[in-house]
Amino acid sequence: MPALHLELDGTSGLFGPEEWAAERRRAAEAFARLYGRPEEDAENKGWMSVRDAACDLPALTQKAREIREKGETLVVVGVGGSNRAAQAAVRALAPDADILWAGNTLSAAEVRRILDKIETKDVCLDVIAKNFETLEPGSHFRVLRQAMARRWSGRELAERITVTGTRGSRLERVAREQGYAFLTFPDAIGGRYSALSPVGLLPMAAAGLEIDSLLSGAEEMERALRADGTGGAAADYAACRSLAWRKGKRVEILSCFEPRLEGLGRWWLQLFGESEGKDGKGLFPACAVFSEDLHAIGQYIQQGTQQHIETFLCVRDGGASVTLHNDGVDDGFGYLDGMDFAEINRRAEEATMAAHAAGGVPCVRVGVDRIDEAALGRLFYFFMASCAVSARLLGVDPFDQPGVEEYKARMFRALGKDVQ
Amino acid sequence: MPALHLELDGTSGLFGPEEWAAERRRAAEAFARLYGRPEEDAENKGWMSVRDAACDLPALTQKAREIREKGETLVVVGVGGSNRAAQAAVRALAPDADILWAGNTLSAAEVRRILDKIETKDVCLDVIAKNFETLEPGSHFRVLRQAMARRWSGRELAERITVTGTRGSRLERVAREQGYAFLTFPDAIGGRYSALSPVGLLPMAAAGLEIDSLLSGAEEMERALRADGTGGAAADYAACRSLAWRKGKRVEILSCFEPRLEGLGRWWLQLFGESEGKDGKGLFPACAVFSEDLHAIGQYIQQGTQQHIETFLCVRDGGASVTLHNDGVDDGFGYLDGMDFAEINRRAEEATMAAHAAGGVPCVRVGVDRIDEAALGRLFYFFMASCAVSARLLGVDPFDQPGVEEYKARMFRALGKDVQ
Repeated sequence: MPALHLELDGTSGLFGPEEWAAERRRAAEAFARLYGRPEEDAENKGWMSVRDAACDLPALTQKAREIREKGETLVVVGVGGSNRAAQAAVRALAPDADILWAGNTLSAAEVRRILDKIETKDVCLDVIAKNFETLEPGSHFRVLRQAMARRWSGRELAERITVTGTRGSRLERVAREQGYAFLTFPDAIGGRYSALSPVGLLPMAAAGLEIDSLLSGAEEMERALRADGTGGAAADYAACRSLAWRKGKRVEILSCFEPRLEGLGRWWLQLFGESEGKDGKGLFPACAVFSEDLHAIGQYIQQGTQQHIETFLCVRDGGASVTLHNDGVDDGFGYLDGMDFAEINRRAEEATMAAHAAGGVPCVRVGVDRIDEAALGRLFYFFMASCAVSARLLGVDPFDQPGVEEYKARMFRALGKDVQ
Repeated sequence: MPALHLELDGTSGLFGPEEWAAERRRAAEAFARLYGRPEEDAENKGWMSVRDAACDLPALTQKAREIREKGETLVVVGVGGSNRAAQAAVRALAPDADILWAGNTLSAAEVRRILDKIETKDVCLDVIAKNFETLEPGSHFRVLRQAMARRWSGRELAERITVTGTRGSRLERVAREQGYAFLTFPDAIGGRYSALSPVGLLPMAAAGLEIDSLLSGAEEMERALRADGTGGAAADYAACRSLAWRKGKRVEILSCFEPRLEGLGRWWLQLFGESEGKDGKGLFPACAVFSEDLHAIGQYIQQGTQQHIETFLCVRDGGASVTLHNDGVDDGFGYLDGMDFAEINRRAEEATMAAHAAGGVPCVRVGVDRIDEAALGRLFYFFMASCAVSARLLGVDPFDQPGVEEYKARMFRALGKDVQ
């Protein structure tokens, strides 16, 4: 069984076989350079080895167990790349887990809402920050630890707080001084490539996910890509995106018929948007959750400016069965008698892809057999590897985000912060 | 006090004063034609008069009161335009209201999740469908009423169910036969223009929102636009969008610094995407919630392909106050001592707009004083009127969605439905 199915049949109108062969060779070269020269750009490649990225596992699983056993609410303080992978996995596999996501806004109303919510709850805090200068996690950490200090003190307070930061950072020093648990945000991993590091893993484990399976799935994907030598499915997908860009496409829509994968779409959007949107380049990333969004952006996809490609994230096994029965009410839906939603959803997916392809939209299919920890591990790794290759093909740095600094510099000035 | 503030200063690089004057005249003409000839296209213009759209108010408020007084969970069954306005208003003003949103997916896992959730709850149902042929609400109505029939029967069951449909429809007949309450989905209003009709109003009222204020705000906006004669701010916004399109822009991002308005962004996306994305035209609509998304799509907005314009949805009064205090921990955020999140958020908004404008992004500002029912009413009406004018300027029909039929036809065939 392959780790992941990638189908590019729906893109045949976009390029000819020779163009494909040439671009696929470029993708293989980019992959070989990325993976074959670990010393080059080493400070950004910590995510490439799943085994290295997933550090601090004993401490992390112990902490997660404590949180779960005490039945406490986990408040995750993180922004951007530091929270989306965990949000994605929790939404997919443990949507009712007792987790609050904070540190990702500056809205007073939203901060107030979080503070009100935790007032009567037994909470733990996980503060995630690589560069502990980012305003959102920094400011939330302040008000949240102060709110907690009104209820607990000393060791009882300290044990409720974990920080995930880089070694040698100010955040680590604060943790040591205050007695908080400390987990490593590996130096050589940027926020948007941190899914499989303690950044993503602690909240996932606290939500009850089997992170061993998740990591096994990711390692399986890593092995498959490395073994192939030319980048396998990741290089296929990157080559396809690169050709789409060169043929004038400017938007990529990630579509899915399982609302549970909405968070994965948001993670994907952040990964690709921040990795590629620079130097005036990049496919603008957008997500759609069908069938809801067929009644929203569906019209545009079908008949709007044909500047987009669409990547369908497909799941073979819907994971549940709900059959439609006739109850004697003449509701006009008799043609559904005896059918199952799982089957209807599958047919809707096929009909949609066929309709969009017929409308001139190049369609890619990324498929997994089911939604479980192993599949999510594969998908996280697949998209990270694809993204790094894709950005290289586009001629931009997959690992920086110079444009984010622009508003930060202006904001810091407006807030009177000394900026070196 | 104006109903709404629109500022176009940030778009000056996009067009010169003469181009603006000419496009603004076209917008005034489009507005005059839309509003001045009510008989033309009358079957789609029911939303233009707030007083007419908001029908069945006594029955609707009575039903909402019953639901609230009994403390029941309302399950809203609707898809696309039939649920986003209510979702937007509830997210903004009553985020913890006991409402489940269903009828918007075909995923078996998601349907199962809803069924499991309602198992032990006292639920009421509001089934919304204009054309009661749409698969999602039709299929959900079946499984939900059957699940409810296992717990209640006769009058007790019937009183828990409301349907919102067009008069003379099959859905109305089912309601009469079964004894369900019936509310009017006005014939002359399409799903995406239904915010201020019973479609949007029942769930909002059931969530405890003051729909009188909402409708007053909308009426105020309607009066302001009609009184102006040239379409006021709605025609300004439409003219600006039209010029952006003609100057080669292909994406519009609606940005906001208040997460409470995320749902409004999703409603806006559906409204504009489905109204304009046809005949190979239309700005691709996308939403961003800052500051979270500054760490996601922010990089792309700043430095990616400059094909986008950005519309900031601004709120003067953040509606809450949370001040940052120093607690003696050397966390590096001393420069925030004594500041309030409301102030920080305002400065972040200004810095972001300045940074994006400096990066070459034309920026529009749509501002309201605070987030309350009246402001939401104004915004709903403002965007609907803008959208109709904007689509007319683009040369497409603001009220149809021919592209949505394409996948539906294929899917109905695949499901064995007789299609006339």
